[in-house]
Amino acid sequence: MKNKIEILKLENFPLINEGDDIAEIILNSLKENNISLQNGDIILIAQSIISKSLGLIRNLSEIEVTENAKELHKKVTSKAKPMGLPERSPELIQMILNESKEIVKSEHVLITETYHGFICANAGIDKSNVEGKNMVSLLPSEPDIEAKKIQEKIEGELKRNIALIITDSFGRPFRNGAVGVAIGISGISAILDKRGCSDLFGNKLQSTIVAQIDNLASAAQLVMGEANEGIPVAIIRGYEYERRENSDIKDIIRTKDSDLFRNSNLKYFEEILKKRTSYKKQFSNKEINKEIIFDCLKLAILAPNAHNSQPWKFVIL
Amino acid sequence: MKNKIEILKLENFPLINEGDDIAEIILNSLKENNISLQNGDIILIAQSIISKSLGLIRNLSEIEVTENAKELHKKVTSKAKPMGLPERSPELIQMILNESKEIVKSEHVLITETYHGFICANAGIDKSNVEGKNMVSLLPSEPDIEAKKIQEKIEGELKRNIALIITDSFGRPFRNGAVGVAIGISGISAILDKRGCSDLFGNKLQSTIVAQIDNLASAAQLVMGEANEGIPVAIIRGYEYERRENSDIKDIIRTKDSDLFRNSNLKYFEEILKKRTSYKKQFSNKEINKEIIFDCLKLAILAPNAHNSQPWKFVIL
Repeated sequence: MKNKIEILKLENFPLINEGDDIAEIILNSLKENNISLQNGDIILIAQSIISKSLGLIRNLSEIEVTENAKELHKKVTSKAKPMGLPERSPELIQMILNESKEIVKSEHVLITETYHGFICANAGIDKSNVEGKNMVSLLPSEPDIEAKKIQEKIEGELKRNIALIITDSFGRPFRNGAVGVAIGISGISAILDKRGCSDLFGNKLQSTIVAQIDNLASAAQLVMGEANEGIPVAIIRGYEYERRENSDIKDIIRTKDSDLFRNSNLKYFEEILKKRTSYKKQFSNKEINKEIIFDCLKLAILAPNAHNSQPWKFVIL
Repeated sequence: MKNKIEILKLENFPLINEGDDIAEIILNSLKENNISLQNGDIILIAQSIISKSLGLIRNLSEIEVTENAKELHKKVTSKAKPMGLPERSPELIQMILNESKEIVKSEHVLITETYHGFICANAGIDKSNVEGKNMVSLLPSEPDIEAKKIQEKIEGELKRNIALIITDSFGRPFRNGAVGVAIGISGISAILDKRGCSDLFGNKLQSTIVAQIDNLASAAQLVMGEANEGIPVAIIRGYEYERRENSDIKDIIRTKDSDLFRNSNLKYFEEILKKRTSYKKQFSNKEINKEIIFDCLKLAILAPNAHNSQPWKFVIL
């Protein structure tokens, strides 16, 4: 066993309803699948069934839409339509706002920061694998606590030390497609800090930090799938990790200050102001597209001016 | 076998030198590890050994540093030092510039776009697991072609259909720690488009695209590690995928236009100009920190002015 890692799947897992005891159902499913848990096994559970068991399913038809959400809906739709992307309803936009601490980007899609600190599309609200036309699932509000509850019940029952990870799939900047990520953990550290460890040649590693729970969540995604696979629970066996009693999903969240891709507009504004220079006697003979000139003028007339007198004249040579 | 995925590791893999035939060495290692490849197996290879075999190891002491790199070195160091981060040498900065198409962010670290289109820290240049104090490894320039060569040789030898993925580990926005990613592929599609497939309840999925090669690369990372594990090759068995003859790593790269987190400063500038308004008769009695006032003034005196006459006076009330 030591020369490999296994990703086992729990087949024939039942559909989950509000109030169902996920730990109990996993225990039964392990028996039916003839899997005996071993010390060090990691159980990975798809967010969708945790949310269903907690009753975090909402009917979009029952959402009251604010003016703010209507405006945002118009903006997002106007950008999504020309790209052939599916339209989000004003109700879904409202729900996303309800579940978000901050809008990080609003273009053809809404990328927001959830109350947990996760940055993802649509605040993690999901329509897929939820029964009913207008029904969506929300992320659990305390995923670490949910993970811990299930871990403790299974450990107590089977007398094995295990770790537990609640997974979801998130899109990312720069690379197409979604990958598995962890959104709640118990019994395992979020990250594995290898700084100070030696490499093959005895050199000390200076900056190597491994997001082990996300690598594990991605591995589980290989069996869980995203469509009608019906595999919401996987077990990873043979991965060596240190047991951690008080693990915290927040350890994997970059703080806003240290994140290079959450710079505020203010920061850009400063950079632009500092880069401003005057150009004179440097005109080239290159012909400029009229569109570009008009775009520049449109921005130029936004300049401050006394009593909105707009005292400008432009001559295009 | 159908109810699980296995991640096998090739143990006692030899150190790789320039000119080594990676396919040949993997074939030998498979024998030594008593692993018979099966149809559909996926071989995952760490970038470091591909680069070593190609001689893509550089001595930083031999790099000539341009003024541009010296400036950038100063800037990055001034931000990295207060954060307690390790200092990068001017030579490394120069090497990063040489290997990059564009600097995406330069703060305490350089995030660049490589010539392949990958966005990552330090253009993927790596010091770890490279022998010698000033030696670094560069990314292979045509990773898909390297993957294909090795795949074809192994397939020809063993008469099995396999896929091949060259992996690296990249950091990401929003989440701490690095995860496994694919940088070169052969025999498997980069992404798995599930749009139009049905979910558990027969609803059509609208936007589900899975980055399957990155999930696979992350899974392989679980056995490869990042330090002195000495496991540069893993085999994933039992993952169902369609064979793809002309696979292309570019399929996983978001185009610049469609990437929400590569917005140019220009775009922010437009947004800021459009938001500008005048405030009058709206002064509150709130006391303002002197630092903030001075920061505002520092930016205000960057405004255009005739012949650098700087015709301003400020009165702080």
